[in-house]
Amino acid sequence: MKLLTVDTIEEARQKLLDCVKGRKLPVEYMAVTQALGRVLAEDITTPADIPAFRRSTVDGYAVISTDTAGAGESLPVFLSLAGSVEMGRVADFSLRRGQCAYVPTGGMIPGSADAVVMVEHSEPFDEKSVAIYEPAAVGSHIARVGEDVRRGSSLLRRGTKIRSPEAGALAAAGIVEVAVYAPLNLTILSTGDELVPPAASPRPGETRDINTWALAALAAQSGYRIIASHILKDDCAALEAAVRKAMQTSDIVALSGGSSQGAKDMTAEVFSRVAQPGVLCHGLAIKPGKPTILAFDQASGVVLAGLPGHPVSALMVFRVLLSWLTITLTGQMEPFPVPAKMVCNLAGSPGRAVYQPVALVRSGDGYLAEPLFGKSGMMSTLTGADGYVIIDLNKEGLQKGEEVWVHLWRE
Amino acid sequence: MKLLTVDTIEEARQKLLDCVKGRKLPVEYMAVTQALGRVLAEDITTPADIPAFRRSTVDGYAVISTDTAGAGESLPVFLSLAGSVEMGRVADFSLRRGQCAYVPTGGMIPGSADAVVMVEHSEPFDEKSVAIYEPAAVGSHIARVGEDVRRGSSLLRRGTKIRSPEAGALAAAGIVEVAVYAPLNLTILSTGDELVPPAASPRPGETRDINTWALAALAAQSGYRIIASHILKDDCAALEAAVRKAMQTSDIVALSGGSSQGAKDMTAEVFSRVAQPGVLCHGLAIKPGKPTILAFDQASGVVLAGLPGHPVSALMVFRVLLSWLTITLTGQMEPFPVPAKMVCNLAGSPGRAVYQPVALVRSGDGYLAEPLFGKSGMMSTLTGADGYVIIDLNKEGLQKGEEVWVHLWRE
Repeated sequence: MKLLTVDTIEEARQKLLDCVKGRKLPVEYMAVTQALGRVLAEDITTPADIPAFRRSTVDGYAVISTDTAGAGESLPVFLSLAGSVEMGRVADFSLRRGQCAYVPTGGMIPGSADAVVMVEHSEPFDEKSVAIYEPAAVGSHIARVGEDVRRGSSLLRRGTKIRSPEAGALAAAGIVEVAVYAPLNLTILSTGDELVPPAASPRPGETRDINTWALAALAAQSGYRIIASHILKDDCAALEAAVRKAMQTSDIVALSGGSSQGAKDMTAEVFSRVAQPGVLCHGLAIKPGKPTILAFDQASGVVLAGLPGHPVSALMVFRVLLSWLTITLTGQMEPFPVPAKMVCNLAGSPGRAVYQPVALVRSGDGYLAEPLFGKSGMMSTLTGADGYVIIDLNKEGLQKGEEVWVHLWRE
Repeated sequence: MKLLTVDTIEEARQKLLDCVKGRKLPVEYMAVTQALGRVLAEDITTPADIPAFRRSTVDGYAVISTDTAGAGESLPVFLSLAGSVEMGRVADFSLRRGQCAYVPTGGMIPGSADAVVMVEHSEPFDEKSVAIYEPAAVGSHIARVGEDVRRGSSLLRRGTKIRSPEAGALAAAGIVEVAVYAPLNLTILSTGDELVPPAASPRPGETRDINTWALAALAAQSGYRIIASHILKDDCAALEAAVRKAMQTSDIVALSGGSSQGAKDMTAEVFSRVAQPGVLCHGLAIKPGKPTILAFDQASGVVLAGLPGHPVSALMVFRVLLSWLTITLTGQMEPFPVPAKMVCNLAGSPGRAVYQPVALVRSGDGYLAEPLFGKSGMMSTLTGADGYVIIDLNKEGLQKGEEVWVHLWRE
């Protein structure tokens, strides 16, 4: 028996990064309206000031602020009406001392004006003059040129996901096409002599395959493009053929292995045959998820990930390694974990980091984290979980009442 | 001037619910693999026990537990090897007292066996017998029939979004097609004489429209189907024609109005003409978002939402009313807000609930919430925000250090 070293999460992640180091992620140019949910592959600077002209933020009267000094409810200042600004039109006049002009919300401020008095604090006196009941401070109710975003300044950073605020910011700047990361291509292979497709009726001893569906869902949500997914028997030749074929079309081949030692040995064997330098990681110091094998083929640049056969373990390892990989490569921020207090003690596992599914329960100003137990094959521990907590591998466990970070399962 | 009453968020939400009361949301049947991100429109019960047979959770030897009593490292118990279970096959034999059988992870447990001893705690002695080094408790390393989910019990509830755990659970149960809610149809109309499309070069006084893109992005993310989006001038006849046309194809028409009083009056006027009973809500007691108008047409069942013209206000009101509406109608849980402490005092607004964009900053065991200020038209307050806090309308404000809930902008 070979002496196999087990990697920590951090070591395995570093090995993955080393594999793809120096490679540029593929980028595609898309219309902003088609790019929702995609991640920016470029920093975007603002081509022009936003707003491009001084705008009123209220319905009111543009004034020269010093003209309004001393105005009050009982003693208004009277200004002569120089004109009215129309929406979408240039204010093609300037104010002289003692004048004002009507400006609707969003309308352009006439030259010389330096403040706006809201209609609520003013009153047309006759056709040619307006009573002002409040003194106006310089700049009040005016959005200055470039006040939202200055020309040449950063509008959005690489790694930003395009959602509603970003779509709005791009619209404001007149940017209709952006460079976004193209998804990495992924093939999913689920192996096991006992597996039948979800649509089949399993005979005694057989089990419906879970991993092709569950991993495809997680992979798609993480930004991968699923090229293919197959259920395979634990047959060395068939497995090798399937992996070789997948390597021709995919950046990553995720193989969720049979859970028995024999099946795991077969995965390592196949990876060693198809990839040079081959196996990088013979196991992961996490629970669940220990039987994880990572390999790399330098020539094709393909990463091979042998995930555990247990669906919950397979999903956890996919999330911690492969979802993490695309988040990291595209420069995205990790989703915010939620602080919570443990409802009970939770034991660690010597030499392994524990990733424990938990439900979140609201309690006063915060949350309680309630572990969901179950053998690691059990989907019900996941469908009932809101996220998971991590017990570091050098930690004995978590105490009841201890503050923890809950990483949300569904972001 | 008419006396207009302003609704609280809760009142406006109740009015929206009253509008759609008694109507059934449209449902469609889809393959699970096509339904990712969709929301279940039915409770799903498990048609058969999962697992369907007693399975081993480890590689090991199935035993009759009482046979292993007293076994230890120095004094093993010897059992005779009755056979070996193959993956995916029936264990077509039972153990007799003194016998054991090899079972791989996931393999079927033979009759009479009531425990499994891991290979790590056993050793083949010769071809016909195995040394057992540890006593086995009844049930150890066996997943019982129905231990994950019992036949007839709840697998997934109506209102559950289909993600990876749910796809896996449905695969395990052999459910390949599900009833999910069909998206409601939405038309977006953005009105304003100053507006030009994002791709255009605005002349002085003109502004690029933000709301068609930003609202479409938020609406799609909230589960709406965008039927059309148009930019319109503040012209009463054109507006009426566009709303009438949209009502023929849409469940909801969202009109983000010009921000001036004249434009708002026009929205109310058009809604009154096209809808019976017409306007339900003449303003919302929130900041930003006061100039919100809701209307309903009983005959067509269409909801008309007049949103503020300011993009930030329009997005906030859409989220608080229309995203909320689909979450509520489809029975989804609201996303988890994140607890945080205010970094500074934040004033409320008399008679209005304040929805304040904030950035989250990690600090020790939790987060600080840092308000982003800016006039309400400013997209930069949103692209920089992680979410928002709410100051109730009967609250003077938030104190520095006060515990608040941050509702994440991007869920």
